[in-house]
Amino acid sequence: MNQPVSALSRSELEERLSALSCQYEDVRAKGMQLNMARGKPAASQLDLSMDLLHLPVDCTLEDGTDARNYGILDGISECRKLFADLLGLKPEQIIIGGNASLNTMFDTLASLVLFGTQGHKPWGRLQYEGHAVKFLCPVPGYDRHFTMCEELGIEMIPVPLLEDGPDMKMVSELAAANEDIKGIWCVPVHSNPQGVCYSDETVRALASMETAAGDFRIFWDNAYAIHHIYEEKSVLNIIEECEKAGHPDRPYFFFSTSKITFPGAGVSLISSSDANIKELKGHMKAQTIGHDKLNQLRHVQFFKTPENIRLHMKKLAGELRPKFDMVLNRFDAELKGSGLLEWHNPKGGYFVSVDTLPGCARRTVKLAKEAGVTLTEAGATWPYGKDPNDRNIRIAPSFPTIDELEKAVDIFILCVKIAGIEKLLEK
Amino acid sequence: MNQPVSALSRSELEERLSALSCQYEDVRAKGMQLNMARGKPAASQLDLSMDLLHLPVDCTLEDGTDARNYGILDGISECRKLFADLLGLKPEQIIIGGNASLNTMFDTLASLVLFGTQGHKPWGRLQYEGHAVKFLCPVPGYDRHFTMCEELGIEMIPVPLLEDGPDMKMVSELAAANEDIKGIWCVPVHSNPQGVCYSDETVRALASMETAAGDFRIFWDNAYAIHHIYEEKSVLNIIEECEKAGHPDRPYFFFSTSKITFPGAGVSLISSSDANIKELKGHMKAQTIGHDKLNQLRHVQFFKTPENIRLHMKKLAGELRPKFDMVLNRFDAELKGSGLLEWHNPKGGYFVSVDTLPGCARRTVKLAKEAGVTLTEAGATWPYGKDPNDRNIRIAPSFPTIDELEKAVDIFILCVKIAGIEKLLEK
Repeated sequence: MNQPVSALSRSELEERLSALSCQYEDVRAKGMQLNMARGKPAASQLDLSMDLLHLPVDCTLEDGTDARNYGILDGISECRKLFADLLGLKPEQIIIGGNASLNTMFDTLASLVLFGTQGHKPWGRLQYEGHAVKFLCPVPGYDRHFTMCEELGIEMIPVPLLEDGPDMKMVSELAAANEDIKGIWCVPVHSNPQGVCYSDETVRALASMETAAGDFRIFWDNAYAIHHIYEEKSVLNIIEECEKAGHPDRPYFFFSTSKITFPGAGVSLISSSDANIKELKGHMKAQTIGHDKLNQLRHVQFFKTPENIRLHMKKLAGELRPKFDMVLNRFDAELKGSGLLEWHNPKGGYFVSVDTLPGCARRTVKLAKEAGVTLTEAGATWPYGKDPNDRNIRIAPSFPTIDELEKAVDIFILCVKIAGIEKLLEK
Repeated sequence: MNQPVSALSRSELEERLSALSCQYEDVRAKGMQLNMARGKPAASQLDLSMDLLHLPVDCTLEDGTDARNYGILDGISECRKLFADLLGLKPEQIIIGGNASLNTMFDTLASLVLFGTQGHKPWGRLQYEGHAVKFLCPVPGYDRHFTMCEELGIEMIPVPLLEDGPDMKMVSELAAANEDIKGIWCVPVHSNPQGVCYSDETVRALASMETAAGDFRIFWDNAYAIHHIYEEKSVLNIIEECEKAGHPDRPYFFFSTSKITFPGAGVSLISSSDANIKELKGHMKAQTIGHDKLNQLRHVQFFKTPENIRLHMKKLAGELRPKFDMVLNRFDAELKGSGLLEWHNPKGGYFVSVDTLPGCARRTVKLAKEAGVTLTEAGATWPYGKDPNDRNIRIAPSFPTIDELEKAVDIFILCVKIAGIEKLLEK
């Protein structure tokens, strides 16, 4: 346990800062180039999927269709079945999308703006009529969700993400009171960035709450559904829960193989109620003849069964665990009890979310950058890039090698200490 | 040369119809299932690309990037360069898209509706304000272009497609007179369905004409740019011509490998002015981290050079030529001079466009369907599926085997004769 900085006198703080600054100058002089910015798998993880590149060996589908030719709007049935079995979904409620779920999410959100859903007015029309269409955004959250909303003119209301999911008291009060609140972003398993997994109560509350908007939608980005590192977590099935609660059209469930096989060369999916799937296919027909069936088949022939996917995830977790251990152990050793940093211990996913002292996140990221360590921009985990307390930073330990990571984490810790003590000395 | 039906007496026509009807009943009794509906490559064409399925062998890009991981919004530079060289475009003015250009076209059109372009008002905003945003649609044309417009609420004005491109007198008068006319669909090489190639005069007129709308856009769907069967055709570079004419932001150039390698598992691209590419990338950033780089690299390693792509196209043409020969020879033998059918002799592309006697297209397609031959719906080549004269039918000879095709064409010819003579007897 480290000494709390609050127990130090001003001169002790100054002395510490002076010593840390010397260390920092030494590090900066080395001109390193390290990156903990994005949740990218390491090359060693990608190596586990290389057999994909020799597939498919046979391009004829179960039903006799030649997968090399045009057709099949919603994806090949063997692929829908594989992911349905993996995720507890119904194959007929799945549409296989393109190379990444981000695009599927954007297209879905854009279709709500352009066309509306289930007879409700298009959100773009509401915007032109002067309504400020809004989404609830649990924070800290995923910057690319926020960018999508911003691009489509959807205002964002931050909602705290607690240990078991979004603050449901706040969510349900807001959703019930304002018909312009049209949806919520959720990363229900190993959330980006904190690694929060939604409790059953949270999922049931999301499914059953009353909403002023008849077309309130849950964007359920289950990016890390099976991405366990320390502990297997499962979360209630949002589609079933919404159906039980009488709101079958509320959820859109997204998933992809981006962090299972090759990011950006994978297979994505959307699942929802029968009515929503029918509606989405109606729009898709104008947009595409169908997504890449050979890549769908490639993934089916590579994995064959859901069990093999889970086994593959265990291997990937084996690659990630030492890196997460490294980050968390170094934090424990250097910062625990210091009062300079709070962090979550994720059970899976791709990130470690940390909170500096108030007002120190930007300074920490800037210091790290100048010392050769690129981090996700401070503020990125908040809508509009604005973290009101300037505290949250997202650490992505997956991409660097373990040696690089050790260097990067130690530089980061140094920067946390400097920024924190500088702040204390400002007072 | 066949006898013109106009020279036949009523009783001669009745006699013919009676004989044809007997033949038709014989054919129908066989219960065949033949398809000339969509421009799908035959299996024998797809077989020529099977080596793609063992690629890429090395996933490291020229600049050292690992193509297996996230990133590169606009596509890998080796792929942009390959297609730039092939098509006379600039690599920096190309964005590689997803698995088919249809999706790239839809996304581009949707971005104009949602966001507008180069500071002009979003077309969706104009629609909300009561403007009927319109596109000029050369007819007969490609049904999926029309579906896109319909989906996005863009009204369509049919414009005749002449032997050297759209009727430019009509196009330029309409575009100059009405600021709600925002664009035109063009398939400049081996057009779908007639196989028309735009003359230099047409391309220059499209590039230089005055338009009332400052944000008039040419959707240049160059789907068949290198898909020559009988004769190599080249058409002026629309991007260069628009730049010369002082309207650099007017064209969006689309292309894909759908009918080069595997339809729906290919690589698409959009090219435009620097300003438009910058704008499109700005929107793309909210939509995707990037398209499938492994598939881009797969295509680059498969083809290596533009010359190899052209050689590959020659092989594909060798597969298609006997099929087009079959259709055109049978038409010549059975219908030339009869007055019952007019058709184009395409030099490339995927279709033979035919015109029946007025009011006979639907009946012909229906007769063929009942005799086991599926054709593209009559009317599909016109906006809203409404061919005012009920004349045009699109024949797609590529997919069936030559034996199937012979049967299908003979049934089609039979149906043309029956529908035509029925119509003459109505008078």
